Amino acid sequence: MPNSLRVCLVGAGRAAKVHANSLVHHTPKAELVAIVDPIPDVLRQTAEQFGVQSYYTSLVEAIQNVEFDAVVITTPTFTHKDLALTAAGAGKHIFLEKPMALNLQECDAIIHSATQNGVILQLGFMRRFDPEFAEAERRILAGAIGQPMLIKSLTHGPGLPPPWARDLTTSNGMLAEVNSHDWDTVRWLMGSNYERVYVEVANFKGAARNVDTPNFYDNVLVNIRFENGGLGSISGVCPCDYGYDARVEIVGEKGILQIGELKGQAVLICTDRDQGLITPIYRTWPERFAWGYIREMEHFVDSSLTGTPPKVGGAEGRWAVAGVLAGTRSFLEERPVYLNEVL
Amino acid sequence: MPNSLRVCLVGAGRAAKVHANSLVHHTPKAELVAIVDPIPDVLRQTAEQFGVQSYYTSLVEAIQNVEFDAVVITTPTFTHKDLALTAAGAGKHIFLEKPMALNLQECDAIIHSATQNGVILQLGFMRRFDPEFAEAERRILAGAIGQPMLIKSLTHGPGLPPPWARDLTTSNGMLAEVNSHDWDTVRWLMGSNYERVYVEVANFKGAARNVDTPNFYDNVLVNIRFENGGLGSISGVCPCDYGYDARVEIVGEKGILQIGELKGQAVLICTDRDQGLITPIYRTWPERFAWGYIREMEHFVDSSLTGTPPKVGGAEGRWAVAGVLAGTRSFLEERPVYLNEVL
Amino acid sequence: MPNSLRVCLVGAGRAAKVHANSLVHHTPKAELVAIVDPIPDVLRQTAEQFGVQSYYTSLVEAIQNVEFDAVVITTPTFTHKDLALTAAGAGKHIFLEKPMALNLQECDAIIHSATQNGVILQLGFMRRFDPEFAEAERRILAGAIGQPMLIKSLTHGPGLPPPWARDLTTSNGMLAEVNSHDWDTVRWLMGSNYERVYVEVANFKGAARNVDTPNFYDNVLVNIRFENGGLGSISGVCPCDYGYDARVEIVGEKGILQIGELKGQAVLICTDRDQGLITPIYRTWPERFAWGYIREMEHFVDSSLTGTPPKVGGAEGRWAVAGVLAGTRSFLEERPVYLNEVL
Amino acid sequence: MPNSLRVCLVGAGRAAKVHANSLVHHTPKAELVAIVDPIPDVLRQTAEQFGVQSYYTSLVEAIQNVEFDAVVITTPTFTHKDLALTAAGAGKHIFLEKPMALNLQECDAIIHSATQNGVILQLGFMRRFDPEFAEAERRILAGAIGQPMLIKSLTHGPGLPPPWARDLTTSNGMLAEVNSHDWDTVRWLMGSNYERVYVEVANFKGAARNVDTPNFYDNVLVNIRFENGGLGSISGVCPCDYGYDARVEIVGEKGILQIGELKGQAVLICTDRDQGLITPIYRTWPERFAWGYIREMEHFVDSSLTGTPPKVGGAEGRWAVAGVLAGTRSFLEERPVYLNEVL
Repeated sequence: MPNSLRVCLVGAGRAAKVHANSLVHHTPKAELVAIVDPIPDVLRQTAEQFGVQSYYTSLVEAIQNVEFDAVVITTPTFTHKDLALTAAGAGKHIFLEKPMALNLQECDAIIHSATQNGVILQLGFMRRFDPEFAEAERRILAGAIGQPMLIKSLTHGPGLPPPWARDLTTSNGMLAEVNSHDWDTVRWLMGSNYERVYVEVANFKGAARNVDTPNFYDNVLVNIRFENGGLGSISGVCPCDYGYDARVEIVGEKGILQIGELKGQAVLICTDRDQGLITPIYRTWPERFAWGYIREMEHFVDSSLTGTPPKVGGAEGRWAVAGVLAGTRSFLEERPVYLNEVL
Repeated sequence: MPNSLRVCLVGAGRAAKVHANSLVHHTPKAELVAIVDPIPDVLRQTAEQFGVQSYYTSLVEAIQNVEFDAVVITTPTFTHKDLALTAAGAGKHIFLEKPMALNLQECDAIIHSATQNGVILQLGFMRRFDPEFAEAERRILAGAIGQPMLIKSLTHGPGLPPPWARDLTTSNGMLAEVNSHDWDTVRWLMGSNYERVYVEVANFKGAARNVDTPNFYDNVLVNIRFENGGLGSISGVCPCDYGYDARVEIVGEKGILQIGELKGQAVLICTDRDQGLITPIYRTWPERFAWGYIREMEHFVDSSLTGTPPKVGGAEGRWAVAGVLAGTRSFLEERPVYLNEVL
Repeated sequence: MPNSLRVCLVGAGRAAKVHANSLVHHTPKAELVAIVDPIPDVLRQTAEQFGVQSYYTSLVEAIQNVEFDAVVITTPTFTHKDLALTAAGAGKHIFLEKPMALNLQECDAIIHSATQNGVILQLGFMRRFDPEFAEAERRILAGAIGQPMLIKSLTHGPGLPPPWARDLTTSNGMLAEVNSHDWDTVRWLMGSNYERVYVEVANFKGAARNVDTPNFYDNVLVNIRFENGGLGSISGVCPCDYGYDARVEIVGEKGILQIGELKGQAVLICTDRDQGLITPIYRTWPERFAWGYIREMEHFVDSSLTGTPPKVGGAEGRWAVAGVLAGTRSFLEERPVYLNEVL
Repeated sequence: MPNSLRVCLVGAGRAAKVHANSLVHHTPKAELVAIVDPIPDVLRQTAEQFGVQSYYTSLVEAIQNVEFDAVVITTPTFTHKDLALTAAGAGKHIFLEKPMALNLQECDAIIHSATQNGVILQLGFMRRFDPEFAEAERRILAGAIGQPMLIKSLTHGPGLPPPWARDLTTSNGMLAEVNSHDWDTVRWLMGSNYERVYVEVANFKGAARNVDTPNFYDNVLVNIRFENGGLGSISGVCPCDYGYDARVEIVGEKGILQIGELKGQAVLICTDRDQGLITPIYRTWPERFAWGYIREMEHFVDSSLTGTPPKVGGAEGRWAVAGVLAGTRSFLEERPVYLNEVL
C-alpha cells in the first residue's frame, strides 16, 4: 500500500477547516495537496492558513492540475451529487460530509458511481468515531443494557443556519442540516431501521431574525417507531443560542445508558452563592467532537490506503436522508409517514 | 381558623403510607384520625404502623364513626369518583391522588361536587412542591430562559404495575398511572394547554413477565403540540428495572433549564478502574420526592384550615386526564389526536 | 416510656431556630415548651415564631417555672459548661451544640455531671445523621473501600463569625467553631484517634473587614497522623463568601469514597455559551444538612424517651475539643503537636 | 527558521511512547529520527512501533551517527543530569521529563549547561498545557476568584512504581516521581514560592506487596506555607489501585475554582438500582492528559524552531525538586522544614 494519501479539500469554509486541521496536524499519513472553493477570498484564506500552494475554484480544474488520491467534500448539500460523481469518475476516494444529498435518487447515483469506479465512500458521521459514542456502542453490543427499547438523541446548535441550509428546496432544512447525526445515531445504536416517523415543528425565533424562508422552523421533535418495535426521539433546536448540545440516552431491557453531557470542560467556579456554580458548556461542534473529527479522518485515510470499506458509508448516508424525507413529509402533511412511502 | 386538621386516610397501601408519614411526622397542624381500606390485613397493618386507633373497611363507615375534616384518597383510579363524591357530600376537604379519574365525566362530577359542597380539592401532583421543580418554576416565571419552546419530561419506574394499573379499562394504563405527573408538568411549565398529541408505544417485557393485558405497553413516547406553538415530549418506561427516574428539560428562547438528574445521593465510590465510578440512583419515588410529599401535604393542610384554594386542583387533574385520553386514542388509531376530539 | 419529650431550648439565635423547626415541625414525639435567651428581643421573636408561650432570660428561671424533660443548648461555647451542669443537676437530658466546651476540664465536668445525674448527653454532630454521611459510614463498615488510609474533610462557611467565635479566649476560633464537625468526621470515619497534628493558618480577609482579634485567621489547613498510621486533612475557610461547602473524601486500601458535592439543587440553567452552565450551590448549613438536623433531633428525642445512650455523646465532643487544642498549639508554636501533650 | 525539528527520543519506555505518539501523529513540524535506550529489546520494540530506523543504546552513539536538533529525555531521574549535559554540549535542545534531577546541584548543572550552549530547556510539566489547567490559569490571572489563598492538588496513581522510583537514593520516591506535577501546579497557580513545608507519610500496602525499600510510603500529605502567606496541600497515593486521579481545588478571596474531576468519559450506565450509576474513571495518565501531552510537545517544537524560551523550564523544574527535598527532610525529621534550609 502507498505510504501517504494525497487529499484535495473541496469547500473551504468552516467544516473544511476542521478537516484541514485533522489532515495537516493529526494525520501524518495524509497530505493536503489542494483546496477547491468557488469563492476566491475564502479559498485563498484557507489555503494560506494551512500552507497549501494549489487552490482552484472548481474540482475539475484541481483534477486537471494536481495529482491526488482523495477528496474531502464539505460544500453545501445541493452540490454533493455532482461533486461526488466528478470525483468518483476521476478515481478519487470520497469523504462526503452529511447530509449525503437532497434525495434518494442523488444518494443512489453517488453510491453507484463510487462502486463502479472502485473508490472508497465514507460519510461524515463523526459521532461514530467520538470516543464516548464508540465506547457506548461497544457496551451496547456487549449487552450492557440489553436490547435497546427507547433511544433519544438531540442536537441543539447555537447559531442561525445560512439561508440555503434552512430552505427545504436547497437542503431539507434543520432536520437534515443539524439532525442528520441524530438520524444516523438512533438507527445505528438501536440496530434497526425506521418504520414510521411523526414530526412536529415550531418557529419561535424566525420572525425576530427576519427569516422569511417558507416552512422555516427552529424547533423540531421527531417520534420514531423502528422495525424492531423500538421507539426513538430526535429533537433539534437551532438557533438555540445557549451553546452546542449533543446528547443521547438509551433505555434497554436491562438498563439505561447516556452518552455525552451538557457540561464542557471540567473547570468549575463559584464566587457568588446567589448565582451558584459555573461550568463551561461546549461552544461549538468542533470543540465537542475534537477527537471524533480526528478519528474519522484517520479512518478515511486508512480505508483509502488499504482499500478497506469504511465503517460508515453510502448506505448509512442514504438512510439518514430517507428519515429526513419522511419526517419532512410528516410535518407538512400532519400525519405519521411510513418509510416505505419514501423509499 | 381551627388549629388542627383531622384527616381520614382512604387507602392503606404504599402511597397511603407516604402520606401517613407526612401527616404523622411532618405536619404538626394535621392529625391522622382514621384509616379506610377494604382489605383488612393491609388496613390493620398500616393503622398499627402509624398508631391510628380507628380504621374501617369503607369511607361511609368512617364518616359515621369518627369526626374528621378531610380525606386523603390514595385508592385505585376507578374508585376515585365515588369516594370523592362521598367525601364532598359529607363536607370533607379532599386530597386526591393522581390520576384524577378514568374520564372527563368523572372529573367533572368530582369538581362539581367539591364546588357545590364548598370543600378544598387538591390533586396529588407533588412535583409542583418539590424544591427543585418549584425553583425551576420561579426561574421560568422570572424569565430566566425566556419563553419555553420545547419541554421534555420523563418518568421511568422500576417495577411492573399491578394488573388494574395496566388495564385500559380500569386505569388508562401507564400514560395515566405513571405519566400523569409528566402531563401536568409539561402543561404547567410550558404555560399552555395541549393542542394535539401523537403517541407511540412498545411492549418489550410483557411476554417474559406473563402480562396478557390487552394493549399493554411498557414504553411510551408522546409528542405534543401546545396551543402556543410550543412542543412537548413525554416518555414513560415501566418496568424500567434500573431505578426511579424523573427528569425535565426545557429549552426556552434564551436558554435551557434542567430539573433533576439521574444521580441520587452524593456518595461516590470507585474501587476498580475497569468498572469506574459508582453513585446511587433514586430507588423509589418516595425517596426522590421526599420533600415534595411533605410540602404538598403541608399545603393541603394549610389550604383546608384557611379555606384557600390550593395551587393545584381539579382543573389541573382534568387536563392531565384529557391528555391521557387523547394520547391513548392516538396510539390505538395511529394518528395525531386533537384535544378538542376528547374535551 | 413517656409519650412525649418536653424540651426547653436554651439560646434563641440561628442554630436555635433550626432545632426549634425540627422540634415543632418534624418531631411529633417532642414538645417545645420553653425558650431561654439572655437577649429579650431575640428571645421574644423566636418564641413568637414558634408559638412558644413560656420564655425566660435564664435557664434557672425556666427550670423554676416550667416542667420539661430536656434542654437543647445552642448558646456560645463559653457558656456550655455552666448551662450543661445546671441542666444535668436538674435532671434534664442534654442536647449540646458543638464545640462541646472551651477545654478538656470543662468537657470532663459536663460528662461527669451527666453521668452522675443519669441524663442523656448528645453532641450536635449532625453530619453523622445526614443520609449521605450515614450511607458512607455503612459502606465503609461493610468494607467497600477497605481500610481507610487518607481522609480529607473541609468546611468553608460564607460569613465572618461573630467576635466571640473568632477570639481564642472565648471560643478557640475557627478550628473549633467551624471545623468541629471535621474533627469529629475524620476521627469517626478513620476509626482511629489523632496521634499528632500540624496546622498552618492564614489571614487574608481580616484587615479589609476590620478584624483586630489577636491570632485571627480565615484559612486553616490541618495535617493529622492517626494512631493507626492513617493520614488526615482538614481545611477551613471562613468567611469564604462563595457559599456553604462541606465535603469529605476518603481513600482506602481498596478505593476512594466521596461524600457530598459542591452542587446544591439539581436545577441547571444555561443561557450564554460564553458564561456556561449555572447550578445552585448550598447557601447555608441548614439547607445542606436539612435532614441531618431533623434526624439528630429524632435521635435525641428517642434516646431521651427510652434512656438509650445516643450515637454521639460526650466522648466524641471531648475528642474534637482535644484536636482543636492540639491544633491551636501547633500553629502558635509552629511545630507538630502530639495529642498526649494536651490530653 | 527551519521547517522541521529533528528529534532523538532518549528512553524507550512508557513515557517515551506517549511523546513518540505526539511527535509522529500530532506534531507535523517534528520528525522523530532516532531512539536511544540501553535495553535492546525495549529499544527495538519502540523503534519498530513508531517506524524509526535509527536506534542506539547510548545518546553519544546517536549523536555520532544521526543528525538531529533536539532530545526528548524520558529516562529514570538519576540519569537526567548526565544525559542533559551531553545533549546540551552537543547543541541539542532539551525536553526533559519530571522530576528534573535528584538534587539542586544537578538542576543547576543542567540549567547552566543549557544556558551556556544556547539550547532550549523545557520541563515535562504537561498539566500546564492541559486545556482545563490552561483555562483555569487564564481565569485566575483574569481575577475570577481573586487572590488565591488555599490550593490543594492531588495525584493518585494506580500501580506500584518500579524499585528505582520508590527508593530515596535513586529518585526521592513518590513525592518526586508522582507528585512533581503537584509541586509545580501549586506554586504556579498560587503565584508564590514555598516558604516551609510539613509532610506526613504512611505505608499501608508495602508489606503485602513485598516492598522492603527503606522509608517506603504509599500515602503522603503535604502542608505548605507560601511566601505570600497562602496555604497549600498536596496528597499522593500510589498505588491507589482505583484509577488515575489528578485534581486541583483553589479557594481565592472571591471564590472557589476546581480543575478536573474524578469522572472520565461521559458514558453513564445504570442497570441495577441497588448498585447505582456507573461512569468511567480515567485509567491512566496518558488518557487523562491526552491533549496536555500533545500541546506540550507542540510548544517544545515551536520553541526550539523559533528559539523562544518555553513557558516552563529549568527554574520551574528546580523549584519542584526543592519542594521534594524539603518535604522529604520534613517527614524524616518530623518537623516543618523551611525552603531556605535546602536552597
